[in-house]
Amino acid sequence: MKRNTYIENTQLDTARKNFLDRLHLEPKTEPIPVKEAAGRICAQAVYAKMSSPAYNAAAMDGIAVRSADTAAARPHAPVFLEEQDYENINTGQPLPKGYDAVIMIEDVVMEGEKARIHAAAAPFSHVRVIGEDIVETEMIIPSGHTIRPVDVGAMLAGGADTVTVIARPVVAILPTGTEIVERAEDMQTGKVLDSNSWMLAGLVEEAGGVPVRHRPVPDAYETIKEKVAELARTNDILLIGAGSSAGSKDFTRAVMEELGTVIRHGIAIKPGKPTVLGIIGQTPVIGIPGYPVSAYVSFREFVEPVLLELGGRRKYKQTLTAELSMDVTSSLKYAEYLRLRIGKVRGRYVATPMQTGAGVSMSLVRADGIGVIPQDTEGMHAGEPIDAVLVRDRAEIDETLVITGSHDVVLDIVGDYMPVSSTHVGSMGGILAMLSGQTVIAPVHLLDPATGEYNIPYVKKYLQEPMAIIKGVERTQGLMVQKGNPKNITGYEDLIREDIHFINRQSGAGTRVLLDYRLAQAGLEADKIRGYDNAVTTHMNVAQAVRAGDADTGLGAYSAALALGLDFLETDAESYDFLVRQEDLEDPRVKRFIRVLTSDAFLAEVQARGGYDTKHTGRVDLI
Amino acid sequence: MKRNTYIENTQLDTARKNFLDRLHLEPKTEPIPVKEAAGRICAQAVYAKMSSPAYNAAAMDGIAVRSADTAAARPHAPVFLEEQDYENINTGQPLPKGYDAVIMIEDVVMEGEKARIHAAAAPFSHVRVIGEDIVETEMIIPSGHTIRPVDVGAMLAGGADTVTVIARPVVAILPTGTEIVERAEDMQTGKVLDSNSWMLAGLVEEAGGVPVRHRPVPDAYETIKEKVAELARTNDILLIGAGSSAGSKDFTRAVMEELGTVIRHGIAIKPGKPTVLGIIGQTPVIGIPGYPVSAYVSFREFVEPVLLELGGRRKYKQTLTAELSMDVTSSLKYAEYLRLRIGKVRGRYVATPMQTGAGVSMSLVRADGIGVIPQDTEGMHAGEPIDAVLVRDRAEIDETLVITGSHDVVLDIVGDYMPVSSTHVGSMGGILAMLSGQTVIAPVHLLDPATGEYNIPYVKKYLQEPMAIIKGVERTQGLMVQKGNPKNITGYEDLIREDIHFINRQSGAGTRVLLDYRLAQAGLEADKIRGYDNAVTTHMNVAQAVRAGDADTGLGAYSAALALGLDFLETDAESYDFLVRQEDLEDPRVKRFIRVLTSDAFLAEVQARGGYDTKHTGRVDLI
Repeated sequence: MKRNTYIENTQLDTARKNFLDRLHLEPKTEPIPVKEAAGRICAQAVYAKMSSPAYNAAAMDGIAVRSADTAAARPHAPVFLEEQDYENINTGQPLPKGYDAVIMIEDVVMEGEKARIHAAAAPFSHVRVIGEDIVETEMIIPSGHTIRPVDVGAMLAGGADTVTVIARPVVAILPTGTEIVERAEDMQTGKVLDSNSWMLAGLVEEAGGVPVRHRPVPDAYETIKEKVAELARTNDILLIGAGSSAGSKDFTRAVMEELGTVIRHGIAIKPGKPTVLGIIGQTPVIGIPGYPVSAYVSFREFVEPVLLELGGRRKYKQTLTAELSMDVTSSLKYAEYLRLRIGKVRGRYVATPMQTGAGVSMSLVRADGIGVIPQDTEGMHAGEPIDAVLVRDRAEIDETLVITGSHDVVLDIVGDYMPVSSTHVGSMGGILAMLSGQTVIAPVHLLDPATGEYNIPYVKKYLQEPMAIIKGVERTQGLMVQKGNPKNITGYEDLIREDIHFINRQSGAGTRVLLDYRLAQAGLEADKIRGYDNAVTTHMNVAQAVRAGDADTGLGAYSAALALGLDFLETDAESYDFLVRQEDLEDPRVKRFIRVLTSDAFLAEVQARGGYDTKHTGRVDLI
Repeated sequence: MKRNTYIENTQLDTARKNFLDRLHLEPKTEPIPVKEAAGRICAQAVYAKMSSPAYNAAAMDGIAVRSADTAAARPHAPVFLEEQDYENINTGQPLPKGYDAVIMIEDVVMEGEKARIHAAAAPFSHVRVIGEDIVETEMIIPSGHTIRPVDVGAMLAGGADTVTVIARPVVAILPTGTEIVERAEDMQTGKVLDSNSWMLAGLVEEAGGVPVRHRPVPDAYETIKEKVAELARTNDILLIGAGSSAGSKDFTRAVMEELGTVIRHGIAIKPGKPTVLGIIGQTPVIGIPGYPVSAYVSFREFVEPVLLELGGRRKYKQTLTAELSMDVTSSLKYAEYLRLRIGKVRGRYVATPMQTGAGVSMSLVRADGIGVIPQDTEGMHAGEPIDAVLVRDRAEIDETLVITGSHDVVLDIVGDYMPVSSTHVGSMGGILAMLSGQTVIAPVHLLDPATGEYNIPYVKKYLQEPMAIIKGVERTQGLMVQKGNPKNITGYEDLIREDIHFINRQSGAGTRVLLDYRLAQAGLEADKIRGYDNAVTTHMNVAQAVRAGDADTGLGAYSAALALGLDFLETDAESYDFLVRQEDLEDPRVKRFIRVLTSDAFLAEVQARGGYDTKHTGRVDLI
């Protein structure tokens, strides 16, 4: 078993500085037509080759006159100009020889061919004088400037038809891995669909580079080496996807060492640690880790700075300081990147870290911002301020409805009608988030074992302020089983059978409260159930585990079973409702939420999922 | 003289509402490959077709084990796994049948073929379970979402290879005008170089549309009509450039009336009033006024909203509230658009309106933001807060050095080395801006007639706080005359000749102070000089007027005469210096300014202009 045994743990800033210091990045330049220059970076200041206007011109529609001829005109003592003493003129036309002013058409009364005027025209009044806009030799835009459409207009008006811009850096992206397939239809166990290289291509383009994505190469040292050597020769930057870790098939570092120099391998960041920073010839080469979030962090911290410098660009980050909604622990060894959901609750921003690994690309999709817990820190406490670099516009965040609590697919459907940020922490988690002022809406489905009533007893018990419930759906719950029910499960009493493996929901989830209630009713002991402690956080995860054969059954919503083609034993109907503060019923986001819940399109879509009763959906009950 | 006699003056919001209400804009959609979807707007929510990972996979490099086999392992009581009881596994590889956990390579000690472990592995530890990232049927992105590179990655990982997006609206741009030429080399008096259509094309692209710019058509009714009819049929939006006013060659409105409906002509905005809003068939058609700033305002207020709605896009504007630096008057009839220079001075934002007309495209290039004085308002007072929509990034504005005072071309050169925002109000204007806390740097060249000394006497007289002077350049001033000096001007005494027309600088300009000083010394009377009251605001404007023959001579800097190929009678050498508060010497922008002034590259560039002595440039003198 041959492995790269040593990966460093270099501090982020040190590693980046070592890398950039070594590169001697020199932007290349190229002349291009001004007409195609919007969005490019000006490399040499552009000076006007001609004035604009290029001659004295009428600034208004009217008549051209000699100002001296009009000097005597007064409101009650008009001057009449004969046909040969004025000329009709439109805006932009050159002032005819001998004339030095324009009188607006509105201020002229035509009497036959005579023009009657009631006010003197000052010299050059309503005349755009030569060079009024741009004077020949004047600087129009400086170097380093990002060319905008208005700059294109001004350059053309100033007679410039080419502009020297900084060339877009060409970035080769080379996915590696024998397991990589390119098309969804080629997927099978052991294969991985390439998605990182396309994400990287998009990020390169956003940062002003030209991405050239190559087909994946298998994990064969010589093949990789040959391709890397070629691409390092012909591109400005080379990114090698995956193969950067210490596994027996990880060749990136070795190839880079043979062809050039490895500057750093192993950075004290999480995720993103197994990044390799090197140089082959004059070309920066970066080994990008294989997990999507690692690849993303590695891009932002190492590729983007190189790309921006080589492209002459600056990036202005939108940042925001938010209040952390929960304690977060972090290793002293790494700077840790948190993907944060950020939302406005009671006038302040609340950031909820998504507790997910480097492999969860959906955490990038769902994140509003990225926060960093520095190296040498053990973590942060709930309520502490955290700085986030936003990945969504702040105005968009402001109008996003913050939802924290139990998950149901109806939340996804709502999200197709209005911007929502939903965090899935179970029903009790939702009540706690409401209690600590961290959510606007808390979806709950909590059965009170004492009364058999849903939700209201919990609200009364935990929350002191005036609350309301926006009715959600009546939802069919039950046991999901594999197609054809091979283990012949008929109800809760089968869960304690020795041959049955169960998959549970996390503690505090409404579905788990329901399970415990039913077990108690039936006199069944939880610790007799195999898998009672194996817990996942959504109905779909339960369905997935059952379909994959990791469990024989789990309790969850009918819609999830239906979506994954499982059989289903209906056991219960429960109320999945939305808890909200009464004062927040005036929040425009909540008003919009209620409009969505009661809209025909939304209701039709929910009913099509199966297992939902929507007769009260959207009704507001004050508690 | 046939003219369109009636242009309305409809209030902006009313006009826009009338227009949008009439259009029934329906975004079109199209399926495209996910790999090309970054930047596009999702038209239908995308759901995962497969789970990711698609199988249980190793989350770490290490060995796959059965967790039960490891249950007894303790730090001081290791367990040995035989060759057949584990398998080497790399990150991402599928967990082999029968195994349910992975132990990290760091935690395994190989003894021959046996693996020694010192801790129990929990079931599914270091395993990425099926669906951990994305669960089949899960919504990946909702409709209306702007697709980012991370979304592309997640969609691909979820097995989606096409996505239905909103089609980019196709926008035809048709310049009109017999006077329009397309190339700088075709320019001559009476001709106008087309630049607006290219600015509009860039703005369309920025707003998510596909611009199709057509060649200009001459002012001939039938030709325009034919082309407009064709383009309205084949595009989503049609913009007709110029011809929208009430001149005798303005056919836009009449053509639109014949082919379709004019909804509004004449909006209560300045600039931008002669905008025409109409519809031909189902296609929105907008007559865009010919002045560049009018065209810009018309685009932002009318074209962009249509384009965004048809393209399913939202635009998030960056705004900022700044303190107005001067009184601004405004007509009650119009909402007036101010192009503002905005800069940070003493910790707050100061906005200086650029006092220029609709024809000045450079005002758009130099603006930091656009502010609006509402209709039915007579203006605003200095010191009042004004809201600006930024056209430059706020972070960029923050690091821009605010310079207000006398203009010299050395300021343009500085602007090529660092971001500066320079407003040209003459030397006394600079001192007043300093006095009222509206500038960081005030360039001045003010001669004290009593002492013959430059600048310092003025600083001592007007400014009470501790000030400093950063030495600028010793500048050669003199009389600019046409090539060959046809009027045989030999000095100040010639200025009172009857055949000499003079062009002056504005009151408060250092050059005008110098002129008055020299006239007084020579006993010459200002009111004997023809053109003494004709004033322009820069050296280049003086040079331009002389070259164009609008004046025979004017006083100004040698560099300006040289740039425009004029002859020059040297009369004076003067100190052009930079006034700054002593406390602002610590401002990083001022430090950078001094570094630029003393850099070899900058000094070489200044010297190449001619007429400058740079021996003290960049020296700081405390006063």
